Amino acid sequence: MAMTGVLRPGHAVVRVLDLDESVKFYTDVMGLKETGRDNSGRVYFKCNDERDHNSFIIRKADRAGMDCFGFKVAGQAALAELEGNLRNLGVTTERVAAGEMLETGERVRFKVPTGHTIELYAEKSDVGNGLGYVDPEAWLENQKGINPVRMDHCLMYGGDIDGTRKIFEEALGFSLVERVKLEDGTTDLATWLTCSHKAHDIAMVRHAEDDKLHHVSFLLDTWEQVLRAADIMSMHRVSIDIGPTRHGITRGTTIYFFDPSGNRMETFCGGYQWYPDMQPTTWTWEEVGRGIFYHDRKLNPTFLSVVT
Amino acid sequence: MAMTGVLRPGHAVVRVLDLDESVKFYTDVMGLKETGRDNSGRVYFKCNDERDHNSFIIRKADRAGMDCFGFKVAGQAALAELEGNLRNLGVTTERVAAGEMLETGERVRFKVPTGHTIELYAEKSDVGNGLGYVDPEAWLENQKGINPVRMDHCLMYGGDIDGTRKIFEEALGFSLVERVKLEDGTTDLATWLTCSHKAHDIAMVRHAEDDKLHHVSFLLDTWEQVLRAADIMSMHRVSIDIGPTRHGITRGTTIYFFDPSGNRMETFCGGYQWYPDMQPTTWTWEEVGRGIFYHDRKLNPTFLSVVT
Amino acid sequence: MAMTGVLRPGHAVVRVLDLDESVKFYTDVMGLKETGRDNSGRVYFKCNDERDHNSFIIRKADRAGMDCFGFKVAGQAALAELEGNLRNLGVTTERVAAGEMLETGERVRFKVPTGHTIELYAEKSDVGNGLGYVDPEAWLENQKGINPVRMDHCLMYGGDIDGTRKIFEEALGFSLVERVKLEDGTTDLATWLTCSHKAHDIAMVRHAEDDKLHHVSFLLDTWEQVLRAADIMSMHRVSIDIGPTRHGITRGTTIYFFDPSGNRMETFCGGYQWYPDMQPTTWTWEEVGRGIFYHDRKLNPTFLSVVT
Amino acid sequence: MAMTGVLRPGHAVVRVLDLDESVKFYTDVMGLKETGRDNSGRVYFKCNDERDHNSFIIRKADRAGMDCFGFKVAGQAALAELEGNLRNLGVTTERVAAGEMLETGERVRFKVPTGHTIELYAEKSDVGNGLGYVDPEAWLENQKGINPVRMDHCLMYGGDIDGTRKIFEEALGFSLVERVKLEDGTTDLATWLTCSHKAHDIAMVRHAEDDKLHHVSFLLDTWEQVLRAADIMSMHRVSIDIGPTRHGITRGTTIYFFDPSGNRMETFCGGYQWYPDMQPTTWTWEEVGRGIFYHDRKLNPTFLSVVT
Repeated sequence: MAMTGVLRPGHAVVRVLDLDESVKFYTDVMGLKETGRDNSGRVYFKCNDERDHNSFIIRKADRAGMDCFGFKVAGQAALAELEGNLRNLGVTTERVAAGEMLETGERVRFKVPTGHTIELYAEKSDVGNGLGYVDPEAWLENQKGINPVRMDHCLMYGGDIDGTRKIFEEALGFSLVERVKLEDGTTDLATWLTCSHKAHDIAMVRHAEDDKLHHVSFLLDTWEQVLRAADIMSMHRVSIDIGPTRHGITRGTTIYFFDPSGNRMETFCGGYQWYPDMQPTTWTWEEVGRGIFYHDRKLNPTFLSVVT
Repeated sequence: MAMTGVLRPGHAVVRVLDLDESVKFYTDVMGLKETGRDNSGRVYFKCNDERDHNSFIIRKADRAGMDCFGFKVAGQAALAELEGNLRNLGVTTERVAAGEMLETGERVRFKVPTGHTIELYAEKSDVGNGLGYVDPEAWLENQKGINPVRMDHCLMYGGDIDGTRKIFEEALGFSLVERVKLEDGTTDLATWLTCSHKAHDIAMVRHAEDDKLHHVSFLLDTWEQVLRAADIMSMHRVSIDIGPTRHGITRGTTIYFFDPSGNRMETFCGGYQWYPDMQPTTWTWEEVGRGIFYHDRKLNPTFLSVVT
Repeated sequence: MAMTGVLRPGHAVVRVLDLDESVKFYTDVMGLKETGRDNSGRVYFKCNDERDHNSFIIRKADRAGMDCFGFKVAGQAALAELEGNLRNLGVTTERVAAGEMLETGERVRFKVPTGHTIELYAEKSDVGNGLGYVDPEAWLENQKGINPVRMDHCLMYGGDIDGTRKIFEEALGFSLVERVKLEDGTTDLATWLTCSHKAHDIAMVRHAEDDKLHHVSFLLDTWEQVLRAADIMSMHRVSIDIGPTRHGITRGTTIYFFDPSGNRMETFCGGYQWYPDMQPTTWTWEEVGRGIFYHDRKLNPTFLSVVT
Repeated sequence: MAMTGVLRPGHAVVRVLDLDESVKFYTDVMGLKETGRDNSGRVYFKCNDERDHNSFIIRKADRAGMDCFGFKVAGQAALAELEGNLRNLGVTTERVAAGEMLETGERVRFKVPTGHTIELYAEKSDVGNGLGYVDPEAWLENQKGINPVRMDHCLMYGGDIDGTRKIFEEALGFSLVERVKLEDGTTDLATWLTCSHKAHDIAMVRHAEDDKLHHVSFLLDTWEQVLRAADIMSMHRVSIDIGPTRHGITRGTTIYFFDPSGNRMETFCGGYQWYPDMQPTTWTWEEVGRGIFYHDRKLNPTFLSVVT
């Protein structure tokens, strides 16, 4: 009850071209904490205020992009029920054994119509945020880099976003929070979905090619931390796509930037709270620019074209 | 699924000694928007980013305090199921007819062991936040006063907080997020519970007298808005209990202050996100001062004694 | 002693194409306070925390741009001494009678080699910031629009910036705080000068055409106010050139935008404190992009070309 | 011209009871950078954005308090002229040899009527802020502790604050910015003076005992940094006197706290800009509480009594 089924985004597995350079980037610039490596070569990270063992995983590959995006669910019974929902919708699922990812329980893996691999799991070891569960301090001193609160959501590009949305809504209990319409006023260009009262836990944009990553997003606490993040990116000569600015959609503030392999990442802050009794918001084609980038009020050229 | 059952705090009904003075306070200083009055004398308000018709209601009475605190639930089926859960725990419930409160559907009303009246309801008219659901702006210009985002939670004082917690957990699906222990290391002095991924949707402190209100809390977006709120309180010579400061518990930033009738209110900002797979945090008696007021590290004299 | 001679930027007189539209823009969007109109058609404004009668004046003309930029000096003796300094450097000065501008004393007017008209004056009526000089509140409630603290500085474009700098330094006691070098490593592309411990009170960029305005800048207090300003600009569909972002030069945060006549304006926040015992900072041609826009690390196309 | 004579507060020499404990406090908690030690046992520190070699110096002694407070002046000629001004007012001055303090030129030392020792000097070695003077970054990564921008001002307690003010105004060119009146409406309880366009460079409160230190203040950039400072103080169990809060006087935000020897320190942020053509602000006895602590609107018990 209250929070049931799918709880939140739990892990993103991202491909990088050079592992050492990427570890250095995610450690020193992003300020993630490396929590382990496995013998398939994956490097595991967690963010500052996450308690589970890992939320962001990289592996070396020939091309950048995202292997899969996983959600933590509220227990094994929920996992079984959600898998059943998926199968009832005709989605093929497979079980990946506990331990195949470090400190992570059995996963239910499936593909959505946009070609992305999604995972559900109920268990990931609680390693804590370093503050403890008795008489904690408010935060940890002497953290470095951008130091986000948590891995927050991702934006996927692919063809059949209606099909993918249907699965998230009908099998996984997500709700539509915002949408952008194409010029025809009917077709969705993009949709933002939530499984919580965040403005989005996942989003998708209609795109010619399937299984593409637009960005993985990391949460920051304040607009001052957004400025600080942009400063740190500049100090390290990170390629910034756009920002600091605000999204009209979700109202969150943002910076888009690229990791050394060309994967777009986001630091996101704010965004309103949305509950499933609320109406979704629609953006017309005429106002999509303001919807995406509230200050520039036009899409930057890379937004609709550069994905990995 | 995902967000089910109890969604969020929906309304607080508070008694005031002078209606006109209180309307002026909640309008001009707090910056709430009056949305209606009914023929039993209640005045209805909503906050800046709330979409439902009302969240804070005042009525004239001989003594200050809170009549009831209501939660919105995810539909009529959930309402029935939750009522069933309550009755299974031996809680007496009554139904209050739709329309008894303005723009509000049928309510399930019951008393918890600490003597407080709690309500559940599934329907309250969506009047919007003034931005609309198509191509909205990011916020409304020319608002006045403190202008909180939403009514966020309340803290109740009463005797049997264990009994009240049991009902919130077992019948309503809430989870324990933080607790403070008494000197014996066993008994709870206070507990913070959530029905969402907020750090708290309701809290309770053990107290000799039942059915007491410690505070109703309103959400602010940023620490700068907290400063601005304290400034506005001073400009209007509002009695400030404490703040701006930070709570150790929830890590939120806060100001406690009193309305003209002596009801304590709070402006609250921040607080971490908590999901039901996470462990609760415990504060020992030795560190309760730091838990409540992170900077002063001691309770101020009014915290445990002044309630309405 | 301590603060002597030239105190601060005091007024900018700017040409607009449509007076009513401009008054509306500077009042409703910028949030300046109109303080008067004279019979030559000038409309006078002041900012939120300025005490003098006016700091920003507009008049209708066929082309946009800036008529003159004025500095307040520390009394009539200083005015006479500064005029003497100017004449000793061969600068022709004229006296404009007190009252020619509303509530403004006699002005010393002269042209600098970049073609701009500069004024000095010692008197402008103190109309206060609305808070009074006895037991003031911290700020005024219910202000509207962007509501800047003060008119802060301007950036002028013209040919002989070396000659103009010489006059500001040698006759008016300004100091060089930052400079950008051209590819030759010797010639200044731009210089930032101060008469105080602000990082800049005036700046100039080398440009083919004389007497051009790049922007007049208004001070904001916080980075959150910068975000709020950008939001307000979007709500009113103001043309934003760039921002919110940070300058490397001065380290201040910024938005550049255009008034309805195409005059570029800036909201500026922060910037370090510089005293005349300190060394200036030099930016090489290779790093000028990062110097101007610290996050984008390249000049946007309009920065060097669009002036009025 | 422009900035002449006395430029700014340059150093405070403070007595501590335990040198090692104090070095640890000023390094780890305050985040000052130790820049040297001399053979008389003084330990020198500078703040994050200061360029001169030192601004805060501690030495071991039997009782806490401040040995002297020094101001940097605009060159040797200004130093001589200011010394002449002091002698013309009957103030006895002495010259302390260059090098007596590390990296500091010859100082003019004198006592003011409140018993405090004040110093003037024209030279202190520029060691930079670590960013360099060519193509600098916006700030230095990986700083620790509260990490203030600069040593900003001090507040002195003593008997004849009128006499001390006269010297600062008449010999040193300071201006009165704010004052608090006693119940008689005539006598100053306290005055705030500036030699710049800061709201204060030094302040003094009338007190029975001479030569007392109320606090030395360190500048922070933002209200978020004030919160962070208060958090860090709590993490290190620093004794906080009051704050985070706002002063009515200067409008700055503040935390007062005590170093391990009981010397009160302040982190200060904001405050308006004041120029010598402006009127001072007066606070009446009735409103002094709001003047000192804008939110509490009453003096806390220690403000008028605890000094070192």
